Amino acid sequence: MAKGASISGFPEWLPSERVVEQRVIDTLRRVFELNGFIGIETRAVEQGSSLLKKGETSKEIYLLSRLQEVGQDNDTPVEDRLGLHFDLTVPLSRYVVEHSGDLAFPFKRWQIQKVWRGERPQEGRFREFVQADIDVIGQGDLPDHYEVELPLVMVSALEQLRAFGLPKATVHANNRKLSEGFYRGLGLTDIEGVLREIDKLDKIGADEVAKLLVEGCGASEAQARACLELADLTAANGDELAVKFDALCAKHNIAADSDAYVLARQGLDTLAMIVDEAARIRPGSVIADLKIARGLDYYTGSVYETFLEGASSLGSICSGGRYDNLASQGSRKYPGVGLSIGLSRLVSYMLHTAGAHASRVSPAAVLVAVWNEEDRGQSNRIANDLRARGIAADVAPSAAKLGKQIKYADKLGIPYVWFPAGAAGISDESGADESAHDEVKNIVTGEQCEADSRSWEPDSVVARQTVEVADR
Amino acid sequence: MAKGASISGFPEWLPSERVVEQRVIDTLRRVFELNGFIGIETRAVEQGSSLLKKGETSKEIYLLSRLQEVGQDNDTPVEDRLGLHFDLTVPLSRYVVEHSGDLAFPFKRWQIQKVWRGERPQEGRFREFVQADIDVIGQGDLPDHYEVELPLVMVSALEQLRAFGLPKATVHANNRKLSEGFYRGLGLTDIEGVLREIDKLDKIGADEVAKLLVEGCGASEAQARACLELADLTAANGDELAVKFDALCAKHNIAADSDAYVLARQGLDTLAMIVDEAARIRPGSVIADLKIARGLDYYTGSVYETFLEGASSLGSICSGGRYDNLASQGSRKYPGVGLSIGLSRLVSYMLHTAGAHASRVSPAAVLVAVWNEEDRGQSNRIANDLRARGIAADVAPSAAKLGKQIKYADKLGIPYVWFPAGAAGISDESGADESAHDEVKNIVTGEQCEADSRSWEPDSVVARQTVEVADR
Repeated sequence: MAKGASISGFPEWLPSERVVEQRVIDTLRRVFELNGFIGIETRAVEQGSSLLKKGETSKEIYLLSRLQEVGQDNDTPVEDRLGLHFDLTVPLSRYVVEHSGDLAFPFKRWQIQKVWRGERPQEGRFREFVQADIDVIGQGDLPDHYEVELPLVMVSALEQLRAFGLPKATVHANNRKLSEGFYRGLGLTDIEGVLREIDKLDKIGADEVAKLLVEGCGASEAQARACLELADLTAANGDELAVKFDALCAKHNIAADSDAYVLARQGLDTLAMIVDEAARIRPGSVIADLKIARGLDYYTGSVYETFLEGASSLGSICSGGRYDNLASQGSRKYPGVGLSIGLSRLVSYMLHTAGAHASRVSPAAVLVAVWNEEDRGQSNRIANDLRARGIAADVAPSAAKLGKQIKYADKLGIPYVWFPAGAAGISDESGADESAHDEVKNIVTGEQCEADSRSWEPDSVVARQTVEVADR
Repeated sequence: MAKGASISGFPEWLPSERVVEQRVIDTLRRVFELNGFIGIETRAVEQGSSLLKKGETSKEIYLLSRLQEVGQDNDTPVEDRLGLHFDLTVPLSRYVVEHSGDLAFPFKRWQIQKVWRGERPQEGRFREFVQADIDVIGQGDLPDHYEVELPLVMVSALEQLRAFGLPKATVHANNRKLSEGFYRGLGLTDIEGVLREIDKLDKIGADEVAKLLVEGCGASEAQARACLELADLTAANGDELAVKFDALCAKHNIAADSDAYVLARQGLDTLAMIVDEAARIRPGSVIADLKIARGLDYYTGSVYETFLEGASSLGSICSGGRYDNLASQGSRKYPGVGLSIGLSRLVSYMLHTAGAHASRVSPAAVLVAVWNEEDRGQSNRIANDLRARGIAADVAPSAAKLGKQIKYADKLGIPYVWFPAGAAGISDESGADESAHDEVKNIVTGEQCEADSRSWEPDSVVARQTVEVADR
């Protein structure tokens, strides 16, 4: 976050930091589009009724009121008021139902937008941040192969960001049906409650979670410990997963012909398919990790969280799952599966931990000097020649001493300074003086040569504003 | 606006419409960066005190409140509450002051973001829309050549949009000092009032404006008519402007040595410089039009509005001006000049009047068919080969009948359908059947040929998702 940001939780980047964020957004968009996802943007507001429908964050909403109505009693029920969206999944399901007649299903979409959480200010918590989402929504049904493909698209997108210093990402997958079947097999009934407490494992540890399961979810000490055993289970392939899970069921007397086991097995089969299929395409990218619970209550099957190697304190940077009941129209359902990258936190990590930085602040590759204000037209013409050929160019703000103009270029990281021809009698420390030809100087290397604005090309490496990673 | 948008004033585009908006945004960004503008993004919220400081729209603000605080009396003064920004100029001046130590001045920035107006719902008024702004902010002072350059950057950006059906744009410029000097010369003192009424000319006509000037601004009938005469003045070059203006001053007995005339002349000289300089670089792009007043009270010099040929009912699509007093830090001022495109209205015009449309909905150039679900892995590998070479590819949602798969591609506008090799015994109306080789079919032309996913290239015209303009 830019230092001095004056409202806690509303991050704002300095120009050089924004270059990194913009490049991350461009990269994600390119990967999403290469995979055939369609970009949409939804309005920032939704009806309260829509926001309150689902999700544990549904209580952390910013409601809007018109300035003119301040002081008037607002009797409008929250359901009829407007609020800022807190994620991009709820708006997507509303959008899909609203425009279903104009969409082709399954509808694969990407969306990168700000979301807001109406929380109290807290250290390290964003109240405004950018999410980058992909989802696919079916009409009526949705094949489960998307439950493998979407996490893999995210993995390949995150893979592209390794050039900007991001460590290797691994998706940890689980399945709600597997967890629910197991909990029911143990005799537990408050499934949502158990999932909610298990979701806290990384934050508060096993003993605290066991305590909460006993105190709040009606679990015996033994049941609580069994839940923790399940959460401890990980597997790199489907066979390993099935063997470990069946051993656990046998240990806790969950019969293979019970309804609970059948439900769990349904989840297990999907999860096994996911890790095996992912291993075939991109080995090591997706593992089964049965502690993954996800806080949001709209997930009905697969759930995912994504962790970066060596950055576990960051928590999950890309999460999601399958939701079969979020959107419907009459009796027709719109099941979906999707994942969301918490982009602002990711960019913050890249900037402040991974050492990503812009090669320069200005997009311009060239600053055209101005000898005196009367000749500014000449400098503008040179800049326009360059721009017409796709070379970003700026013109010096004033006909100051050349040293000052070069310093301006230097401060913005602009690598080339262009000296227009015919500067009568001007000469200074740069060595530039009256010349019949334009000259261009690389102020990093000191190289200077004659140049024609209609044909000169910058060094291809220097020409582009890029994101680099500091040696650490 | 997408039909069926359920909240009045909050436009939302269908996927194919969003392609056009995204392309417009990409185009503007490219032009802004070619001209050396630096991209920033500011948070969506500002402190009430900052929003209330300036601008006639400052009363049309959405304030935020946390859902948890509904029903509690909110005693917090509006100044200390958070509100959504109503433009990008007020946030920019706050940003510049806040981060002045980290910026190089003059600071040239572009910013494309949503803004919100907390208005009552009204037909045809947006309460959420996208603005595309460029501004340059100086520290202490700001050379006036930027007052020519910025409108010209906008003209060149709008010029690029003509490929998407936009008509020719002309910037109409005026100068507040010119208007103020003339009004004072006439003996008027309520300068802001007069400007506010003159701003309504296009909407309510000269007679109504005259009435308002007499009733509300202390003008005599003759003074009001003189104001209208000034507003009637246009000029394509500086000499014409000076001659016409001086004649008007002579007619109304404004002496050349009066303070009022000196002030007016200062504005006139800048305006003359602007139109002459613009004519040299891009003839016909900027004219002097003395009825341009601009509603916002923070402008102190040049003001601009931009009109499209044959689309006067649209009003100004790109407006701005010079503001010397919007931002300051102690005694240090940050004068600026900038223009803002009302992007949502522009896109609406392009879509619904100019006939701009996406060449296809999906970014994918290829849909890889799936013969049966067991062979999905083969189709995925083909798609990944294509993606690795920058060719956007989708895979059929299910191993449905080939005709259904082709229909899906057709609905998304995907031009190529890829048939993986070795489909045992499958044959249908497409003519595809068991084959030792992959084949690819252009479903628009019907052409079909053998293809290797590691080397095949699509037709370069068909490969890209583009924006086209309907013949009208």
